[in-house]
Amino acid sequence: MFPRYGKNAQLSDGNNILDAAKDVDIEISAVCGGRGLCGKCRIVVKEGSQYLGAVSHLETMSLSKEELAAGYRLACCALGKGEGATLVEVPPESRVEQQRLLVAGIETTVTRNPSVKKFLVGLSGSSLENVKPDIEILLASLVQLGLPTSLRIGHDALTRLPTAIRKGDWSVTVTLEDREIICVEPGDTTKSTYGIAVDVGSTKVAAYLLDLNDGKVVATASTPNPQIAFGEDIISRVFYASESEKNLKQLQGVVIAGINKLLLETCESAGINVAEVYDAVLVGNTVMHHIFLGISPRFVAMSPYPPAISSSVSVRAKDIGLKINPAAYVYVPPNVAGFVGADAVADVLATELYKSKSLSIMIDVGTNTEIVLGNDQRTISCSAASGPAFEGGHIEFGMRAEPGAIENVYIDPTNLEPGLKTVGDARPRGICGSGIVDAVAAMLKSGIINKFGVINTKLNSRRIRTVPVRQYILSWKEENDLGHDIAVTQLDVQEIQLAKAAIYAGATILMKHLHVEPREIQKVFLAGAFGTYVDPQSAVIVGMYPDVPLERVQFVGNAAGSGARMALLSKEVRETSDQIAQRIDYVELAADPSFQREFTEAMQLPHKDLTRFPTVAQLIKREE
Amino acid sequence: MFPRYGKNAQLSDGNNILDAAKDVDIEISAVCGGRGLCGKCRIVVKEGSQYLGAVSHLETMSLSKEELAAGYRLACCALGKGEGATLVEVPPESRVEQQRLLVAGIETTVTRNPSVKKFLVGLSGSSLENVKPDIEILLASLVQLGLPTSLRIGHDALTRLPTAIRKGDWSVTVTLEDREIICVEPGDTTKSTYGIAVDVGSTKVAAYLLDLNDGKVVATASTPNPQIAFGEDIISRVFYASESEKNLKQLQGVVIAGINKLLLETCESAGINVAEVYDAVLVGNTVMHHIFLGISPRFVAMSPYPPAISSSVSVRAKDIGLKINPAAYVYVPPNVAGFVGADAVADVLATELYKSKSLSIMIDVGTNTEIVLGNDQRTISCSAASGPAFEGGHIEFGMRAEPGAIENVYIDPTNLEPGLKTVGDARPRGICGSGIVDAVAAMLKSGIINKFGVINTKLNSRRIRTVPVRQYILSWKEENDLGHDIAVTQLDVQEIQLAKAAIYAGATILMKHLHVEPREIQKVFLAGAFGTYVDPQSAVIVGMYPDVPLERVQFVGNAAGSGARMALLSKEVRETSDQIAQRIDYVELAADPSFQREFTEAMQLPHKDLTRFPTVAQLIKREE
Repeated sequence: MFPRYGKNAQLSDGNNILDAAKDVDIEISAVCGGRGLCGKCRIVVKEGSQYLGAVSHLETMSLSKEELAAGYRLACCALGKGEGATLVEVPPESRVEQQRLLVAGIETTVTRNPSVKKFLVGLSGSSLENVKPDIEILLASLVQLGLPTSLRIGHDALTRLPTAIRKGDWSVTVTLEDREIICVEPGDTTKSTYGIAVDVGSTKVAAYLLDLNDGKVVATASTPNPQIAFGEDIISRVFYASESEKNLKQLQGVVIAGINKLLLETCESAGINVAEVYDAVLVGNTVMHHIFLGISPRFVAMSPYPPAISSSVSVRAKDIGLKINPAAYVYVPPNVAGFVGADAVADVLATELYKSKSLSIMIDVGTNTEIVLGNDQRTISCSAASGPAFEGGHIEFGMRAEPGAIENVYIDPTNLEPGLKTVGDARPRGICGSGIVDAVAAMLKSGIINKFGVINTKLNSRRIRTVPVRQYILSWKEENDLGHDIAVTQLDVQEIQLAKAAIYAGATILMKHLHVEPREIQKVFLAGAFGTYVDPQSAVIVGMYPDVPLERVQFVGNAAGSGARMALLSKEVRETSDQIAQRIDYVELAADPSFQREFTEAMQLPHKDLTRFPTVAQLIKREE
Repeated sequence: MFPRYGKNAQLSDGNNILDAAKDVDIEISAVCGGRGLCGKCRIVVKEGSQYLGAVSHLETMSLSKEELAAGYRLACCALGKGEGATLVEVPPESRVEQQRLLVAGIETTVTRNPSVKKFLVGLSGSSLENVKPDIEILLASLVQLGLPTSLRIGHDALTRLPTAIRKGDWSVTVTLEDREIICVEPGDTTKSTYGIAVDVGSTKVAAYLLDLNDGKVVATASTPNPQIAFGEDIISRVFYASESEKNLKQLQGVVIAGINKLLLETCESAGINVAEVYDAVLVGNTVMHHIFLGISPRFVAMSPYPPAISSSVSVRAKDIGLKINPAAYVYVPPNVAGFVGADAVADVLATELYKSKSLSIMIDVGTNTEIVLGNDQRTISCSAASGPAFEGGHIEFGMRAEPGAIENVYIDPTNLEPGLKTVGDARPRGICGSGIVDAVAAMLKSGIINKFGVINTKLNSRRIRTVPVRQYILSWKEENDLGHDIAVTQLDVQEIQLAKAAIYAGATILMKHLHVEPREIQKVFLAGAFGTYVDPQSAVIVGMYPDVPLERVQFVGNAAGSGARMALLSKEVRETSDQIAQRIDYVELAADPSFQREFTEAMQLPHKDLTRFPTVAQLIKREE
């Protein structure tokens, strides 16, 4: 039944696909426990639909006509009927395991050719008759290994050279970064060659430790961006940094300290020393980029928003205080513009949007959401000031995606009772980004909020309250670990409306610039370092991105981190990134005359103009 | 009379040339005050010798037959006779002013083309319609100035770029080091472009601050090498550094701290800030070179004495802790071998020995004395372990060339009474290197010591004593500021014998290698950071170098410092230095079978084989 996953399962008469999948260890998402309520267990029936029971009423509430026509079913509702083989596909967004993997960012295959490589070199000593400087002996041996003659040696490596040669008894391991010998170590250390890829978000910093010998991620870690103490939003931090050289150094210092903490954490978990990390790739938006490089971000925030540099930068780790091997370099991919940074370039690398003939849109949701629309011909980008709501910020009971964070929500339309799934299945402690998106979408579907986002207090549910503000209770204090009812408040809904309106308006303006309609978009890449899996259906229900058939939507998690990992593993990817950055045009949303109107119309749920969201229109209850 | 110096003087009947020169402000050295005793006021009569009185007896005691034949006279003894024009040359070694200049090292003219250059650049801002990164705007303007398109920007300059551009109102000064933009400063700072050349001797560190815009030395300073605290001789320091990484860092730290002190001192005296120093050249012997670069010198001192590197090195100032502009680089010329370092290469640059068709020998006297023999065809070098005696070290009353140091000595052969000249004409406090060389030569000439260096206690002079050791008193305690009689002891004479024997043996072995005789040497360059002017005649009398006609001998002072200054002023000199270093062959004295015999024979004054020193033979009293 699941040939694509190398699994076959028997679907006996009257049994459902969800259970059949479980039998062969394919874990399909089902927050409501298979009651047909949460709509998360979407599958696609490719062949043999005649051996399944009819589409249920519950399914028609979760799936649009187009989806049903395309073979979409809910796994918990699709029952076996008679004897016959069906062929079923489980979209990645429905697979729990895939969801977890995707949170870390999609894996885009690259041919491994890292900028940093190690070589074991055997040397011959020199005699009184023919004394040769150590470096000449080393370079001659490297040339014999087929390396270019134009290699140079870094100062740190030079200082270690004489001792390393004798300690290693004329056998040393040389670490090359491009054409520079950055390290010389006694004996054979070729097995330990690590690199770290770091995505510095305004809100969250994520690090991935990679073994450069096989390209595998050996450890990951994340932490809130410690700069938050100096201003939650980017602009406050820019102001702070602009006040003095000291402030700038301080902001740089705290974020680098945060990255160093992640470095230590990942190295400890992998059982290696930080000095075994010989390369690093840092990505972030342009302001983050400037600050971690120690460049004042002041002018990035002032019209016409010029970055100091948009090409890629290679800087010695110790120049910015990064505590990997002291001789190593840090590579920072290029920026596109003041508000479309190296992280967006990494997104484009990871999604390979720039390679595709068909049109794609990439939406990297964060406090600033970068949007890139294009194909192999033309690519344009913008940045939308979406705020931290999608990361749980500015949300009354918002929290990071830690154990106890409500990450999935459905609401039973019959009694308006919610079903929750928390991170680690712990007792609830708050709501993370994916949870709030799910909750608002479910509230809209179930009629708890209207298109203006207003909570309907006339509904008959003990979960809807008006004191102290209008709210819908997700979790009673008796059931949770917070010691307080956990609710979605009227203000929370409004935060989501503001955030999604900024994103949708940005996407719309890009489409206008390229004169394309939503239906022409073949692929929507939904990215963001959410920490959990955001349900693309919930996202489209609230109106975050243009309503395209769901199978065209792909959640790619922390794609910026993926792109950073790719740059860590491939010199060619680094070259490509410079070419991409050159090619991406930038649209300044604030300068677009239609932005304000687009933004205002997009404040409604999913949108003032419901014809733009035909699929969603079928799914939501409308009072009017 | 002195057309070469643009001066004419009348020599009246019976007056001497010394006085005539004084009348037109040509200061000729005359320690004895014009009494014909010290032999320092040598001049060369080129024309009109018939208008001078006959050669006096005193002159025959100070000048050899060959010198007299060549027109040499003592200025104080050459009297006018009748009416007629004479044409007189004053060799540089007889001119007080020249002597002072030469101490700092000869000035060899170079075409000024420093590695570091500043450019004033006017920029055009960018608009919302056409936002360009700051660096692109800058690079485009530099290309318009005719600079190459392949310039790159250093990290430090990049961090300062956005602020500098706005602060300078779109006018900035760019500092280029080769193809790297190392600094960007607001407004026009092109006038302040300084560089520092540093000669790191084992015993003394000398620094020269240069204005790179006109190539002039604007301040100089020197200090004892602070590493002396860790061992007076190089080998003790190598042992100390080899004990641990910490010890090496400590030795590096103290010498760099010493250089930083000189940097501050010269900058203060020139009234500039250390950040206005954008380039530095450091020279030193191979061990000094390794230590200030932070490379273990351990193996340099172990057979076969391989240096870590022999090509030139460019390292960022902050990587070795040098407190010039933080973005600047330090250039270190190449080494030849374990004991012939970047300082010797600088010597060869300054003396231009490598350019000359005729044979020259360069002797850079120091604790280790580098000797280079050759011409434009072939050049060989060696290092002689001469010890610190010529710098006043290991001498009972030795001191640095500071005020009160006895720098010139003559002894009246009739009564064995000395005449002294001190630095700054202050009351005596001790003896510096040039003073001890003068004293030993005078003692030999006057018969106070014999060819074995033994003080003749049978002579009738109250200045010769045997208690506590054999000694000759230069200055009674009543006449000096030391509060103690200042003497040359038997051990002092022996130190000088050991030192000069090492040098002479080294020079002899080089001559053997090239199969040349002393008379084939057209030029002897006597170098060394003595702090005062060493009288070449005294040096040859003690037998420090082969006895060649005195006019072929040139005291070139701190030639290593001169070479360092040349490298600071010219990129071409840097290129040349790498070629020179490749070309200079190295002779390991310890490995030469005849070294021990040569050394032993050279212990005598001037040498066991007096036929090797025909000129000196005429000047000294011999008892045998």
